[in-house]
Amino acid sequence: MQQPDLTHALSRLREAAPLVHNITNQVVANVTANALLAIGASPAMVQAEEEVGSFVRLAAALVVNIGTLTAPQLAAMHIATRAAGEAGVPWILDPVAAGATPYRLQAARSLVQLQPAVVRGNASEILALAGEAVSSKGVDSTHGSGAALAAARHIAKEHGAVVAVTGAVDYVTDGQATWAIANGHKMLTRVTGTGCTATALIGAFLGAGFTAMQAALAGLTVLGVVGELAAAKASAPGSFQVAILDGLYELDDATLASHARVTPA
Amino acid sequence: MQQPDLTHALSRLREAAPLVHNITNQVVANVTANALLAIGASPAMVQAEEEVGSFVRLAAALVVNIGTLTAPQLAAMHIATRAAGEAGVPWILDPVAAGATPYRLQAARSLVQLQPAVVRGNASEILALAGEAVSSKGVDSTHGSGAALAAARHIAKEHGAVVAVTGAVDYVTDGQATWAIANGHKMLTRVTGTGCTATALIGAFLGAGFTAMQAALAGLTVLGVVGELAAAKASAPGSFQVAILDGLYELDDATLASHARVTPA
Amino acid sequence: MQQPDLTHALSRLREAAPLVHNITNQVVANVTANALLAIGASPAMVQAEEEVGSFVRLAAALVVNIGTLTAPQLAAMHIATRAAGEAGVPWILDPVAAGATPYRLQAARSLVQLQPAVVRGNASEILALAGEAVSSKGVDSTHGSGAALAAARHIAKEHGAVVAVTGAVDYVTDGQATWAIANGHKMLTRVTGTGCTATALIGAFLGAGFTAMQAALAGLTVLGVVGELAAAKASAPGSFQVAILDGLYELDDATLASHARVTPA
Repeated sequence: MQQPDLTHALSRLREAAPLVHNITNQVVANVTANALLAIGASPAMVQAEEEVGSFVRLAAALVVNIGTLTAPQLAAMHIATRAAGEAGVPWILDPVAAGATPYRLQAARSLVQLQPAVVRGNASEILALAGEAVSSKGVDSTHGSGAALAAARHIAKEHGAVVAVTGAVDYVTDGQATWAIANGHKMLTRVTGTGCTATALIGAFLGAGFTAMQAALAGLTVLGVVGELAAAKASAPGSFQVAILDGLYELDDATLASHARVTPA
Repeated sequence: MQQPDLTHALSRLREAAPLVHNITNQVVANVTANALLAIGASPAMVQAEEEVGSFVRLAAALVVNIGTLTAPQLAAMHIATRAAGEAGVPWILDPVAAGATPYRLQAARSLVQLQPAVVRGNASEILALAGEAVSSKGVDSTHGSGAALAAARHIAKEHGAVVAVTGAVDYVTDGQATWAIANGHKMLTRVTGTGCTATALIGAFLGAGFTAMQAALAGLTVLGVVGELAAAKASAPGSFQVAILDGLYELDDATLASHARVTPA
Repeated sequence: MQQPDLTHALSRLREAAPLVHNITNQVVANVTANALLAIGASPAMVQAEEEVGSFVRLAAALVVNIGTLTAPQLAAMHIATRAAGEAGVPWILDPVAAGATPYRLQAARSLVQLQPAVVRGNASEILALAGEAVSSKGVDSTHGSGAALAAARHIAKEHGAVVAVTGAVDYVTDGQATWAIANGHKMLTRVTGTGCTATALIGAFLGAGFTAMQAALAGLTVLGVVGELAAAKASAPGSFQVAILDGLYELDDATLASHARVTPA
């Protein structure tokens, strides 16, 4: 298994400056847009059923996040992901709190059928999506990421997707090869939307032409490294959130390479 | 009337780390989630009619905020508050701008019938909810908090709720005992969502097992003290907002106790 | 053509403290509310069809932004703008990404028929609104602002509105006189919602009784100058966003006057 090459990942992304279409939740829409701008992508949040099918064809990638799902939004997600499939636009699914209610689980399962390039969730979400009975605490996982590794491989094989399970250590698998990313900082769990930001960053790398595996590794490593650097500057969540946005803008290829801790799992 | 005891309030909250279900407005969803994370709770924003009834049964408390109400959201609020009542999950109502339009007033009145543990509003909102003809300026009050004290007591008695009227001085009443909280800072009125944050913090204390009266006093005192400490560090609203989030995370029981100014009213 | 007089513009706005009704997008709702509070206005986000017609009559100005348009929101915009017209409440249209999809273009065109006092967009948006075939990159313009000047004059004459095209240089025209504003900083393009903030600030000046031309010039000049001052303090987008909010609060008439670069175009 060859070490994925993240050299020049950031400069490639910034040169591509991909238009990333997001259908996302009300809590993180602003943070997601700012994270995408900071890293060098061009975000757009477009969610009306009447236009998502047209809009996604203009985009380089699509991010679908069910955090504050409503029925009209779910309908728009189905239209947009189908259009993305037709147009060859890669997309990523964030099955927020998938196991928390039957409605949410059914929604997440209907979406994973539609061939996302990447699925990113915490352990509780990935376990729920794989059909295991799990407890969860709202949007927060009650399981460590390693506990969902078998479930992640199962989903990856069944749907031909790369699956990322995030937690203290992040895992990325295509069902065969699996990588572990040992970057990040616990303060990332004290600010809302960092998981959603990880998903959006992966979307940006997908939009810049990276493979699903490369995009997932690059997106998660970027956020993990930026989280570490931000935690060195800021010890409380308000300042930390500011430092994360600053860090996404300031991070360069050399710093990413020297801080990345990606190993086979 | 015995002085409410807020000793260990923060450590109790942080140990409980309650899951707080929010059905709230688009302006403050992010700020509310971050404030709840910073204080030590676990926030979730879930608003679809199809799932709020299931989700609220997993939660320790429910926060209902009508700031950017829509008809589907109001339907979800009715479902969620009824389910909360059945499941014994305490909930708090924030009747944002209740008097501004007939639609909003009717919505707020329909919700207050459904047995919230706490109602928190500014003077204009509490006066409107009590049936008094008031002028308001959108979401901002045109009345001092003291002017709504009789209205607050009336609502408290009629609905068996604790009612909090916030302003330069905050008042909390159960219809019999009334307490005044002389904490806070005027900069809190120059950042959006501080009232909604107060409501969410009270929700967090409700979720940690505090009585309605204790939860209202604790939530308002915490935000008032954090506002004072933030204003000492930051003199403009951008920095102040960052300092508020930092302060919610950094505040401890001893600092809360030494700064709290709670007296009988 | 007489130089527009912005002397005392800020103090006039702050004395008026106008209630500004916003029907806006989910990405910028929080940022818009905070910008309006920081500059000295009183924001309200109210969007239900059932109440926008009543609410707008209480407001001093209305801001309509189609960034994350949905069908119910568009219906509310039609009701609110018609009521604004009847009640003499001036309003401003932000046709976000107007050219990106047929749905969005049709929506923007239906709204511009309803007599906005001001239309503010980037070059791609103004060109699309004027009926020219354009490419766009989601919400970001692919054209310089000068390229849309003829289109802006055309819209201004056809609809009796003041039209502002923002970019590296901003232009404001009523179809006859045209002014150029050479303030701003490129970092404003790396934070989401700065265009929407410009629109909201113009709305605040409209609400304080300024003419459409004065309001557009004042709003854009304020944001441009604040952007310059913020960029001198903050070199990355997280800190920059904080500095923008601080700067809107701290800016005074004298600083505005000494930094403004408004010339005939």
